[in-house]
Amino acid sequence: MNRTGVLFVGSSGYISAAVLAGAASLKKGLCQRTGMVTEAKEFSALSLPEPEDMVFGGWDIREATAIQSAERFIKSVNLGEEVLSAIKESLADNEADFYKGFATNCGRAIEALASNAAPEPHLKDQLRKLRSDIADFKKRNSVDEAVVVNLASTEPPIEVSGPLLTPEGLFLAMDDDRKDLVRASTLYALASVLEGCPYVNFTPSNGALVPGLVRLAEETGVPVMGNDGKTGETLVKSALIPMFTCRNLEVLSWEGFNMLGNMDGHVLDTPENRESKIISKDALLPKALGYAPHSRVHIHYVPSLDDQKTAWNFIHFKGFMGAKMTMQFVWQGFDSILAAPLVIDLARLSVLAKRRGEAGLMTQLASFFKAPLGVEVHSLHDQYRLLIEYANAASNERVAG
Amino acid sequence: MNRTGVLFVGSSGYISAAVLAGAASLKKGLCQRTGMVTEAKEFSALSLPEPEDMVFGGWDIREATAIQSAERFIKSVNLGEEVLSAIKESLADNEADFYKGFATNCGRAIEALASNAAPEPHLKDQLRKLRSDIADFKKRNSVDEAVVVNLASTEPPIEVSGPLLTPEGLFLAMDDDRKDLVRASTLYALASVLEGCPYVNFTPSNGALVPGLVRLAEETGVPVMGNDGKTGETLVKSALIPMFTCRNLEVLSWEGFNMLGNMDGHVLDTPENRESKIISKDALLPKALGYAPHSRVHIHYVPSLDDQKTAWNFIHFKGFMGAKMTMQFVWQGFDSILAAPLVIDLARLSVLAKRRGEAGLMTQLASFFKAPLGVEVHSLHDQYRLLIEYANAASNERVAG
Amino acid sequence: MNRTGVLFVGSSGYISAAVLAGAASLKKGLCQRTGMVTEAKEFSALSLPEPEDMVFGGWDIREATAIQSAERFIKSVNLGEEVLSAIKESLADNEADFYKGFATNCGRAIEALASNAAPEPHLKDQLRKLRSDIADFKKRNSVDEAVVVNLASTEPPIEVSGPLLTPEGLFLAMDDDRKDLVRASTLYALASVLEGCPYVNFTPSNGALVPGLVRLAEETGVPVMGNDGKTGETLVKSALIPMFTCRNLEVLSWEGFNMLGNMDGHVLDTPENRESKIISKDALLPKALGYAPHSRVHIHYVPSLDDQKTAWNFIHFKGFMGAKMTMQFVWQGFDSILAAPLVIDLARLSVLAKRRGEAGLMTQLASFFKAPLGVEVHSLHDQYRLLIEYANAASNERVAG
Amino acid sequence: MNRTGVLFVGSSGYISAAVLAGAASLKKGLCQRTGMVTEAKEFSALSLPEPEDMVFGGWDIREATAIQSAERFIKSVNLGEEVLSAIKESLADNEADFYKGFATNCGRAIEALASNAAPEPHLKDQLRKLRSDIADFKKRNSVDEAVVVNLASTEPPIEVSGPLLTPEGLFLAMDDDRKDLVRASTLYALASVLEGCPYVNFTPSNGALVPGLVRLAEETGVPVMGNDGKTGETLVKSALIPMFTCRNLEVLSWEGFNMLGNMDGHVLDTPENRESKIISKDALLPKALGYAPHSRVHIHYVPSLDDQKTAWNFIHFKGFMGAKMTMQFVWQGFDSILAAPLVIDLARLSVLAKRRGEAGLMTQLASFFKAPLGVEVHSLHDQYRLLIEYANAASNERVAG
Repeated sequence: MNRTGVLFVGSSGYISAAVLAGAASLKKGLCQRTGMVTEAKEFSALSLPEPEDMVFGGWDIREATAIQSAERFIKSVNLGEEVLSAIKESLADNEADFYKGFATNCGRAIEALASNAAPEPHLKDQLRKLRSDIADFKKRNSVDEAVVVNLASTEPPIEVSGPLLTPEGLFLAMDDDRKDLVRASTLYALASVLEGCPYVNFTPSNGALVPGLVRLAEETGVPVMGNDGKTGETLVKSALIPMFTCRNLEVLSWEGFNMLGNMDGHVLDTPENRESKIISKDALLPKALGYAPHSRVHIHYVPSLDDQKTAWNFIHFKGFMGAKMTMQFVWQGFDSILAAPLVIDLARLSVLAKRRGEAGLMTQLASFFKAPLGVEVHSLHDQYRLLIEYANAASNERVAG
Repeated sequence: MNRTGVLFVGSSGYISAAVLAGAASLKKGLCQRTGMVTEAKEFSALSLPEPEDMVFGGWDIREATAIQSAERFIKSVNLGEEVLSAIKESLADNEADFYKGFATNCGRAIEALASNAAPEPHLKDQLRKLRSDIADFKKRNSVDEAVVVNLASTEPPIEVSGPLLTPEGLFLAMDDDRKDLVRASTLYALASVLEGCPYVNFTPSNGALVPGLVRLAEETGVPVMGNDGKTGETLVKSALIPMFTCRNLEVLSWEGFNMLGNMDGHVLDTPENRESKIISKDALLPKALGYAPHSRVHIHYVPSLDDQKTAWNFIHFKGFMGAKMTMQFVWQGFDSILAAPLVIDLARLSVLAKRRGEAGLMTQLASFFKAPLGVEVHSLHDQYRLLIEYANAASNERVAG
Repeated sequence: MNRTGVLFVGSSGYISAAVLAGAASLKKGLCQRTGMVTEAKEFSALSLPEPEDMVFGGWDIREATAIQSAERFIKSVNLGEEVLSAIKESLADNEADFYKGFATNCGRAIEALASNAAPEPHLKDQLRKLRSDIADFKKRNSVDEAVVVNLASTEPPIEVSGPLLTPEGLFLAMDDDRKDLVRASTLYALASVLEGCPYVNFTPSNGALVPGLVRLAEETGVPVMGNDGKTGETLVKSALIPMFTCRNLEVLSWEGFNMLGNMDGHVLDTPENRESKIISKDALLPKALGYAPHSRVHIHYVPSLDDQKTAWNFIHFKGFMGAKMTMQFVWQGFDSILAAPLVIDLARLSVLAKRRGEAGLMTQLASFFKAPLGVEVHSLHDQYRLLIEYANAASNERVAG
Repeated sequence: MNRTGVLFVGSSGYISAAVLAGAASLKKGLCQRTGMVTEAKEFSALSLPEPEDMVFGGWDIREATAIQSAERFIKSVNLGEEVLSAIKESLADNEADFYKGFATNCGRAIEALASNAAPEPHLKDQLRKLRSDIADFKKRNSVDEAVVVNLASTEPPIEVSGPLLTPEGLFLAMDDDRKDLVRASTLYALASVLEGCPYVNFTPSNGALVPGLVRLAEETGVPVMGNDGKTGETLVKSALIPMFTCRNLEVLSWEGFNMLGNMDGHVLDTPENRESKIISKDALLPKALGYAPHSRVHIHYVPSLDDQKTAWNFIHFKGFMGAKMTMQFVWQGFDSILAAPLVIDLARLSVLAKRRGEAGLMTQLASFFKAPLGVEVHSLHDQYRLLIEYANAASNERVAG
């Protein structure tokens, strides 16, 4: 028995569809592992779970089944009939693995999507249902380890204070049914940790990995990490910012304009949800530069683009003798296809961490996130080095062991 | 007495003008050290020579005096009257420091510029004149150390074999007046090393740091380094390539289009000279990626741009499930203003190396060059780390000493 | 006697400074008429007033004198010392021509700038002051004709109804001191028309050319035109949109991102003021295409850019068999330098119209405006044809006459 | 019987495949007429032949059948299975309509492709075969009118003099088997005109519509037109150039960089063939501007792009007071999908011209070509006006008749 389970919060979304499509394609030999970070040679000795052996499930608040979503996604990004057949085959017996989700206190934009949301009983009951879903999933699929990955629409930011700062506070909020204090993302993270499943927050929703949750993970021996998968504009920024720093060129302005047309874009079109994303994206520049140039990140919903995220960045900088110069870049990538292999990587590395007995924040995964928790390393390169050093250390331990 | 001398091959060019303008502006407090790499805190304990204390001279084959060139440059990049006055004052007593240069075997494009070239006697006499110029410059300006930096127009590539492989071969070529085997750049480098001056090749001309020359530098205790200052497109490439590698994204095509309108662009408009540049720029991609995507670097002369180099790069890459995506960037920078602070950095670091008793290739300077000699580190970030580690080691030695 | 007076609302702004700099430079032979539309051969027989013979004056609510503003502008766009001397000479005896302006009901962003605003007495008195300024200017400078051009910061949009629909309504609003119904721009336009001066609204402020004002202009024989000078992004759009139409390519999305750092940008950073601009810029697309694709125009204040407006437009379109394709453009232009020659053109053509006895909207000037009044021609080319046909007709009349 | 025949020179190429795919899709209702110029209302009264009623055939020198080519094309641009089925059905009984072609004197790049070229007998026999193919095609398909459209790879430019200047010269060259004087494109054009078929040169090959051929067409009452379909970069240029002209902005440099990866790109990678294309593309700027700025058009073969042509244009221009500004655009379009509807338009309009008794150059079609013959109208807008005026005149005649 060697199967790994992966449960998605937001299992009817494009990223989930892309992961399902990718795993099914890999199983059929229709594609290669391009885009998977863990294919680097440094990971080869670590016996990471194979994507072909993963079982997928999850929750959604929308009606669409995982197959329907995958169908729409595949059509949208022109992946072809073969991939669709591969997914259908792979999901044939799996509909039971997809559960009704909750949209508790997620804001109007998300609630408007909630055609399939479960009714919202007492928080304790919500938590109990989610835990029972996980247990059910693990049992029915006979998986050793299950990982929960949050791919759901971005929630509005929540104020992190009081009860969210400690495990006790969180449990009290459950007992008192304080729906004003937590969001759905908090519930999923809590259920996950309580079931001993590593939890990865691929979204900017800050309700998930609040300090109380991270502490609980540390205490119960569960690895967790976030926030916000780094797939496009911020990836490029974290590669480029050190160039300006090491050349002592002063960034005057760095303006970023993002357009996307998928569900992520749709929800981000609502100011309160966009807020979370922009906080997550905006944080990088001053931290990485050490000073704060004029900078704003803009996100716009352009339906015709669908999953093809297009970002233009304009960088105005000052060189020797005060000369002003500019750099621009345009990034045109399929958002979910860029995310999918990273989600698989994160599942693999979470299982590894669990096996190795790690608990709390997996800071070695900083390079995967726009706003990595618990680590003050902002250059992509330095973040990647953390990962490689971790892989080397883990490989050496195995050899030593 | 604590003055450092800097001699430019190509002293009437834009980069030389930009260095003169910068140093004079710094002396007058008209600008700051933005763009100088050695301003990072890691260098602060190393007592590097101050740009304000540098004395400049050099050779050119064109009539224009250094002041005339600086005048044209300052007008071209709109630096203003104050900077011009500062230069004029700073060069007032200095015309004697600028010598007639040689264009020996430099190809037609460069020979066509040679209104001020010295007649070309026997190679031994050319070498003798250059050495005597250096000695004269050092004496008249009472400088401790002088550094020679090659900023001249790009020569056509030369075949590196036979006599160029050993010091003895080089000397024999001098004795036999083999003008077919060497180029002007070889003579300057040879004169420099024989006079004990560190030599930096900021151009792609491969006649300068041939193996015989590097060996001679090693044997005589002189630090040297090259090739080809990394100021724009290649700088960005060396920062971006590792991003694709660490995300396991396959680069399909990387096409680079450079336009510039200064003298550098003019000479590069001649195919044989452009050849050297393109070899230097093209080398990076396959080395850094580990495989060779479709890639060509193009350089075009667009006079209206003058010093404002504009480069467009188009990157086509493949992600998960074979999805093709693109990234583009546009770089618009003043070529000589980007180069000037690096030239000052290289002079400072060459003096440091000389003081520390280093000889031969200064591989710690890899980050400054498009095609760094003697080092197989291609990511900007890793190259910069070499530099910082060197600075830290040198600082520790000083403390220890 | 053959001098033309030009009075600017916003005489301390960058566009005013650029016009003053341009006219002074032309007088000194420092530049040519590049950028002036009326230099086309079709205008050569029309004896248009020469820019060298124009006298400039105007109003501002800021302290800065015209010379101070010009100084700042010239420095900002690197025009050099010679131009500054030319302006200083040209304005030497002219400070009297610059009057205190009003910021009546202009919104907080503009009022915050009003260090030099005149106190705001009864509307009738404000109107009287402005009329008296015009009369004073004309008399002191012995000009035949004076034209008023609104270059002031963009006001928030005003609801156009009731009293603004008729001349009578406007006068009543003056009598009743209804400061809630009109804005400063209305007062200037009214003063201008009542003094018989052609009035040009180069801004998007819709308070200026309200229906009552246009009717009054018709009745009193005064030519007027607006709104919003077309200098950059919208200029390109009006040239490109017909390409998509004539090829039957369906525009799916057209997103425009504008960044600028001058005072215009500063005021437009306030949402209520930006509103006016965006209305004016957004109107074009659906009118010109005949259908409304997804489209938003964004304006952002990026101080480091100063007058160098930078706009990125992303156009997503559908071709044969539903294939989706894209076009992008980047426009980098000095906003005020693009505007200045058009302002001179508009002054010349307004004087021509006055001489020819035209009254009301000068629809022949459609090509100069983002949202031309009284004309439903949206393609730049067709708009330009209106102008050329007008010039030809006027030339023929002169010959005939 | 009301069928129109369309014969392609280069029937196994991507444009041919796109036309076949489009016509088949239209027949099945799978797509709309987006991209077809003749869908404008001005053409509605002209009873143009419907694309659904067209029969396609042609010649190729490559082995691939039309269906195989279409298959490859559809896969390459992700058009989906439905379109492929539609084509297969539509071509089911049609293989007989595709004939072996000639590559006579086409240069090495094209000859290297010629796996299916007919042996090259005496020119008179080649001409006879092509005429007989046309007659055969018309008879078997019972078509009223057949149009020949040249979509073949670009030939190297040919010197147009002597025998190519008159019909007599052409016939003499045939009689004397002067394979050095003509190219394959000349033969197809000659066969077409002699068979009374309108001929359209959608390529830049200048061997087709030489003066002798045009004269012959005039004398025999056959409409012809070319050269070089205008689908991308040049389309945009012809829309943008008039903007600079009408604003009196001086273009300093206009540099165009085109990348494409289809067979067109492959053949254009050979310098002698590229020469034809660049001549055709370069001609526009000085003609349309009235002066010649620095300008070069570059074409590069980037296989990974396949049919997705990507072009970057950089425009450097001068405005008032000598200020230099820039505009850039990036065009990303499927080359063949942009061309296909224009090919259908040209077939429709050629049949109309034939019916109307026109002979020689169809100058009304200027807007379709990069280098339109017989007409000095360079602005896209003016060219389009020619077309609309022609359509209106033709409609009025019909009503009158």
